[in-house]
Amino acid sequence: MELSARGAVDPFIVMDVMDQARAAEAAGRDIIHMEVGQPGTAAPEGARKRLARAMEAGPLGYTVALGLPELRAAIAGLYARWYGVDLDPGRVIVTSGSSAGFVLAFTALFDARARVGLGEPGYPSYRQILKALSLEPVGIPTALQHRYQPVPADLAAAGALDGLIVASPGNPSGTMLDRAALGALIGHCAERGISFVSDEIYHGIQYGDRAVSALEVSDDLYVINSFSKYFSMTGWRIGWMVVPEDHVRGIERLAQNLFICPPHASQVAALGALESIDELEANLAVYAKNRALMLAGLPKAGFTRIAPPDGAFYIYADVSDFTDDSLAFAAEILREADVAVTPGLDFDPVRGARSLRFSYARATADIEEGLRRLAAFMAARR
Amino acid sequence: MELSARGAVDPFIVMDVMDQARAAEAAGRDIIHMEVGQPGTAAPEGARKRLARAMEAGPLGYTVALGLPELRAAIAGLYARWYGVDLDPGRVIVTSGSSAGFVLAFTALFDARARVGLGEPGYPSYRQILKALSLEPVGIPTALQHRYQPVPADLAAAGALDGLIVASPGNPSGTMLDRAALGALIGHCAERGISFVSDEIYHGIQYGDRAVSALEVSDDLYVINSFSKYFSMTGWRIGWMVVPEDHVRGIERLAQNLFICPPHASQVAALGALESIDELEANLAVYAKNRALMLAGLPKAGFTRIAPPDGAFYIYADVSDFTDDSLAFAAEILREADVAVTPGLDFDPVRGARSLRFSYARATADIEEGLRRLAAFMAARR
Repeated sequence: MELSARGAVDPFIVMDVMDQARAAEAAGRDIIHMEVGQPGTAAPEGARKRLARAMEAGPLGYTVALGLPELRAAIAGLYARWYGVDLDPGRVIVTSGSSAGFVLAFTALFDARARVGLGEPGYPSYRQILKALSLEPVGIPTALQHRYQPVPADLAAAGALDGLIVASPGNPSGTMLDRAALGALIGHCAERGISFVSDEIYHGIQYGDRAVSALEVSDDLYVINSFSKYFSMTGWRIGWMVVPEDHVRGIERLAQNLFICPPHASQVAALGALESIDELEANLAVYAKNRALMLAGLPKAGFTRIAPPDGAFYIYADVSDFTDDSLAFAAEILREADVAVTPGLDFDPVRGARSLRFSYARATADIEEGLRRLAAFMAARR
Repeated sequence: MELSARGAVDPFIVMDVMDQARAAEAAGRDIIHMEVGQPGTAAPEGARKRLARAMEAGPLGYTVALGLPELRAAIAGLYARWYGVDLDPGRVIVTSGSSAGFVLAFTALFDARARVGLGEPGYPSYRQILKALSLEPVGIPTALQHRYQPVPADLAAAGALDGLIVASPGNPSGTMLDRAALGALIGHCAERGISFVSDEIYHGIQYGDRAVSALEVSDDLYVINSFSKYFSMTGWRIGWMVVPEDHVRGIERLAQNLFICPPHASQVAALGALESIDELEANLAVYAKNRALMLAGLPKAGFTRIAPPDGAFYIYADVSDFTDDSLAFAAEILREADVAVTPGLDFDPVRGARSLRFSYARATADIEEGLRRLAAFMAARR
């Protein structure tokens, strides 16, 4: 048997770094992890307690494909709380993480060979999921002066598009689109019949202005979100989408067949997470402290070409002054400084060779130690 | 925005029955559920206890994409226990239920427009997942005399195929392919370059001979299985695949991008389930008792044209003596007898109009009461 052409997607380069980091730890070395894109914290206590109770109360069989009605209503309530948006719970679709949201959205919206734009640098799986679904990912280079977010002029240069996926706050940049910038992109797409997908997975993790949801601008688009980041539930694989009312029935049929339902236990835990605001805001305070340390410490170490992040827990650095091989540079930092970082190649197949992503999602003591090591490494390198 | 053509998959007809059943219950009626395809039991106690401990022990973040190494090894051990097959754990891929296994298998093996055969009657989502992935499902009518399983002559009549998916025990029939019949199908496909996918989700739930795994016949195929049925964990969305060694890396990349990882909590629970054999065998004894009741009671009620099931917890009945509209007939049974059953149209778009599926996965007292009601209904109808 042969593998298909569309199945031949690219590997995650960060996985190689993680393997090297694990090998170093197995050899007895102490590694600071600035490569991983997930909180170091567990699901909130309220989430775990709620699931522990539910496990004793009855079988956690299949739920309906769109998710527990109580969870859909609670998520709709979040839109009132966060954005002042009055959202019909019937438009909320609970998914097995944002990953399932992307698969459902791309399948529901696009037929084989459709061209879907994505800003570069960006989340690498957009490209690979599109490819696996026989769609054509169209990389759109974004500029540091636009804080690594696409603008309508960038789209015009990409040729005819069937869809566009945008993330604000972005990964790896952490930068946000304000309401005017997001509105300009949505308007550009609406005028041209380009389906718009807004990845809002880092909403809630923000350090100045709050993130703007695409739903504040229009109802005729898809929003994808997750309990992974702000709600600290990566491994639970639970997220949601909001879609136009007339798309719900189509998505429901797809979800019934492709997923049957999101994990029942994770849905129960998510209900608990939505009520654990104090614990989640305490996590956020840690990220905010870490971010301040990074914004002070990275330039001191020599990493000066960064777009200060508005949200998420990443800093993307242009390291072209030091290397044009970010993979080798990341390996050198791991080897010499015992700090794991992500080469930019995962996020941008071209310019990523001259970029690194630093994650600051872990404990503050780790961030302080990591910055000390990075400064010493860079000083020795000069 | 418009929905794509490939996203316009068929609804599950059983969902309409379930909605009607819920409405009847809401109106105060007592309904016996012979429509649902899942155990009435919870995940084994050992599974729930293991997860409860793990939730207190540390964050359940992302696992590696192929699943916890300990779980992959334990699943490989099951192949020794069940089949006497020595399986490299490196070939085991933990998935988010068999649903994710189908998506990964079809994506890894087939490019857009490939033709994939499936026996009819069969699990309806094969057809819909294939369609959603821009593949062409090719329905292959199977015969009651072959106990609703395909034979090589059926395949020859289907035209050139790129792949074939087979389930033994089958859903809705519960019938199994013995080693010779399975070997004949696998040999036929191997000679013609047809990729073979074996759905073994009902293995372990068997009443005479044990089910034969395709891995006993060949290593050059995909096996898909799940913790949903024998292990009583439907809502946990956790399963596995076994693939040829040289496909593992390709599947890993797809899984990283499409799913990131299976639910961590469900992986932990699955480890506990694998050690809960006594409880699972007690569940099996209930199914066996229910099956005996059904095989005696259904013909007495008038449903005589059935293929006695070797495994799973379904009986598929040819009801052409009574109706050529199984949807209306199922609605009548629900309305008159307060028993919910599944019309065959979900499993066979043509002949399913003259078939019903009865599930006996629930408590024995329910089965006894359901059979009483069915007998009274049919007697009144004569």
